[in-house]
Amino acid sequence: MSDDTSGTFDRDTRYITDRIVADAPAGEPAGEKVGDVTWPVEAGRYHLAAARACPWAHRTILVRELMGLQDAISLGLAGPTHDERSWTFDLDPGGQDPVLGIERLQEAYFNRVPDYPLGITVPAMVDIPTTAVVTNDFDQLSKDLATQWGECAKPDAPELYPEDLREEIEKINERVYPDLNNGVYQAGFATSQSAYEDAYDRVFATLDWLEELLADRRYLVGDSITLADIRLYPTLVRFDPVYFGHFKCNRQTISSFPVLSAYLKDLWQTPGFGDTMNIDQIKEHYYVVHTNVNPTQIVPKGPDMSWLDEPSGRDQLS
Amino acid sequence: MSDDTSGTFDRDTRYITDRIVADAPAGEPAGEKVGDVTWPVEAGRYHLAAARACPWAHRTILVRELMGLQDAISLGLAGPTHDERSWTFDLDPGGQDPVLGIERLQEAYFNRVPDYPLGITVPAMVDIPTTAVVTNDFDQLSKDLATQWGECAKPDAPELYPEDLREEIEKINERVYPDLNNGVYQAGFATSQSAYEDAYDRVFATLDWLEELLADRRYLVGDSITLADIRLYPTLVRFDPVYFGHFKCNRQTISSFPVLSAYLKDLWQTPGFGDTMNIDQIKEHYYVVHTNVNPTQIVPKGPDMSWLDEPSGRDQLS
Repeated sequence: MSDDTSGTFDRDTRYITDRIVADAPAGEPAGEKVGDVTWPVEAGRYHLAAARACPWAHRTILVRELMGLQDAISLGLAGPTHDERSWTFDLDPGGQDPVLGIERLQEAYFNRVPDYPLGITVPAMVDIPTTAVVTNDFDQLSKDLATQWGECAKPDAPELYPEDLREEIEKINERVYPDLNNGVYQAGFATSQSAYEDAYDRVFATLDWLEELLADRRYLVGDSITLADIRLYPTLVRFDPVYFGHFKCNRQTISSFPVLSAYLKDLWQTPGFGDTMNIDQIKEHYYVVHTNVNPTQIVPKGPDMSWLDEPSGRDQLS
Repeated sequence: MSDDTSGTFDRDTRYITDRIVADAPAGEPAGEKVGDVTWPVEAGRYHLAAARACPWAHRTILVRELMGLQDAISLGLAGPTHDERSWTFDLDPGGQDPVLGIERLQEAYFNRVPDYPLGITVPAMVDIPTTAVVTNDFDQLSKDLATQWGECAKPDAPELYPEDLREEIEKINERVYPDLNNGVYQAGFATSQSAYEDAYDRVFATLDWLEELLADRRYLVGDSITLADIRLYPTLVRFDPVYFGHFKCNRQTISSFPVLSAYLKDLWQTPGFGDTMNIDQIKEHYYVVHTNVNPTQIVPKGPDMSWLDEPSGRDQLS
């Protein structure tokens, strides 16, 4: 992360942008330059390094679940907190990821790019034979998991990124990503009152827009869950426990939006969503890691999130 | 404030405990030792130094309003933020309190006790002729304003501390003061997770108890507003804008308690309550002054508090 002089938080979006694609030949990856290499789809070859806490990793965990790729791609889960250097596998026995045999995700980055100078982020797809990062481009990775891995997916896997809906999905993302997914971070990490208020206004304008949009449709695009919903959900589910207080996005909670709260309940209760989450880890991550915002590192006990299990009434819309 | 080793916040409750009483002879105060002196009730003699931001000062502002003592006791209002040394009269023209002619409340403390070593707190009742603090014992001061100033009060002034209800009022205070009024501070200023969680639990156990208690009675004790309500209100009205996020008392908002939210609306809409308040100053005070909790000093834009103006339906209870 970096701050420009206006006090606005800028996300570092420089990634290792290799891709794993269906039409790459089996065996060695093709391409020379890191970022331009293509890798073959291959069950058992890759390990998805993620963390339950991180919203960007959360998307890839959701796609892996919904596509039924659990047997084809193993999942490594770093603990909720980390130091300046790296996410660590401190939840695993011996503090080592059982598949990669490493303690710090940083090692897999260094195996790919020695002295890798950027942030050690999750999600990161790791080539198991070389323990080296293939890609940490979370958005492209979600798309590729949804579209390139059909041969390894379960027979009735959903179409999360159907070709005829991509334009609409991306159009929604053009607003949801900067103003909501990243907007909450810009509110929370702002170092000037005006930068904070600008982000806050964008966050709630976007939530108001979504509240209206979802009033008469169950999902954002089409009749079933797509990447548009998968991009929105990790932010919505973190909103009341974290962004409302920690990031000062406190005009109102998601629970107080009639439509958005029902939409969130509906997704939460969908297999692969609520059942793969750990809200305690999410809270611990934000409140312990961001000492610039929360120097005491005290983790709030609330809020009561039991409302997520109440009936949503949304199935009538589909 | 000070911290013991368990991470619990201890409030400094050592005060200048002089009293202004109805049966003191006019003229010079009686008594030698600071804290044991009694002063006469006398219209125009005293200046109540307060701040809209401070919940402890808020009580005395409320009693002065409800008793109709505005002409008898002038009101000085310090700005919402202050430095380590003192509250300042930075909202007044020239940065000086127009009655006392001082910039810092500290001066009035020093005029009474040279090198006064404790916190410079509001409320402080100041003797105008000597520009010296008479008392800063907020609880006794509220009681005395409610009971000793009858000769200066408006004809139909309410009985805020009736003798036959004092036992019940104090019994409620024995729980509301430590576990709620001060409990929110113990949650917010805790430096250990366990001290925070202990305070959080006491805060919400007390709110649950009050929610039940107020279900079938309009006010806490008797049929009209008493000091019991006046002690509770400043905490309730600050809860959603400040204590919920800033002090991490985030199990739920007051707006989500059916009974407590209606009770708060009812009081807010009572003359002397909502109309003497400034929620922006309250937020600015907490979020700017407490850099140990909020190092960025960013002040949240929310929450939406317009619900306070909605009908409470509580008049049916009285």
